Amino acid sequence: MELDLKQGTAVLERTPSVLRALLATLGPEWIDATEGPETWSPYVIMGHLVHAERTDWIPRAEIILAQGEHRRFPLFDRFAQFHESQGKSLGDLLDEFEWRRAESLSTLTGWRLTEAQLALQGEHPAFGVVTLRQLLATWVAHDLGHLAQTARVMAKQYRDEVGPWRAYLPILDR
Amino acid sequence: MELDLKQGTAVLERTPSVLRALLATLGPEWIDATEGPETWSPYVIMGHLVHAERTDWIPRAEIILAQGEHRRFPLFDRFAQFHESQGKSLGDLLDEFEWRRAESLSTLTGWRLTEAQLALQGEHPAFGVVTLRQLLATWVAHDLGHLAQTARVMAKQYRDEVGPWRAYLPILDR
Repeated sequence: MELDLKQGTAVLERTPSVLRALLATLGPEWIDATEGPETWSPYVIMGHLVHAERTDWIPRAEIILAQGEHRRFPLFDRFAQFHESQGKSLGDLLDEFEWRRAESLSTLTGWRLTEAQLALQGEHPAFGVVTLRQLLATWVAHDLGHLAQTARVMAKQYRDEVGPWRAYLPILDR
Repeated sequence: MELDLKQGTAVLERTPSVLRALLATLGPEWIDATEGPETWSPYVIMGHLVHAERTDWIPRAEIILAQGEHRRFPLFDRFAQFHESQGKSLGDLLDEFEWRRAESLSTLTGWRLTEAQLALQGEHPAFGVVTLRQLLATWVAHDLGHLAQTARVMAKQYRDEVGPWRAYLPILDR
């Protein structure tokens, strides 16, 4: 379906409370669980979402809206959370994500974007020309992707414990 | 990891509030969205979770605990929600899931299951002998699987709108 700012924002504004409902106060057996070496735990995913909130969505939208000479986005560091989250508890990350997201959405709403602005372009460092509309749709899909990932990482902790039911739970082998 | 009743219950008791945070008051563009023909929308998934809560987890656990002559579970109807949800709003389903889950967990906690009880067996109509431990682990993984599915169904609505970012969002093609 087409991006509708109101519908997209309705999802974006929920994500902090969804992740809080899912993760807050859970023990390390869940929040530090992974899918194996080099894969992310719910704690790492939360750090990634905080980093993206600070450096990705709104800053990139600003580059597009400014339509200055340099419209190329700075590189996004997919691994920043491994140092940025140091010393922070999961509760800290949930709190920071919540206020940063509220700030982002306040900025987004304040822009009162027009269809013409949604068609403005920027340059992604890896794949070139992208539009503001694509960036905002990606923001929504990115939230939902990491929510699905978090649930999957957690589910996989019981991959062996479910016994023969594994055949009915495709998420355990995804 | 091994099933721990306290850790597993910590996830089970969160699911209603996670789904409420994600879905309550969203419009039909999200709650009736699917991944294509014969696939489930968030609304259908919620109906399935309500049906499972009523007919699957605790009733099957009771069959195992009773260790009667007939330990074979009745067939579970994966499509029951298509008639059972009729006339119910998504809000109705979220409410019903919440109170049924609270009731289930109250029953589960009241049993104060021992390791010996967790090893008791029942008979699954499709794949034969299963233990109570496997049933309870499956309950947790099933919740998380459908949470991941719900997020994936929603994310896919923007599959085309994200443009070249699709290459970075594996959930859109899963």
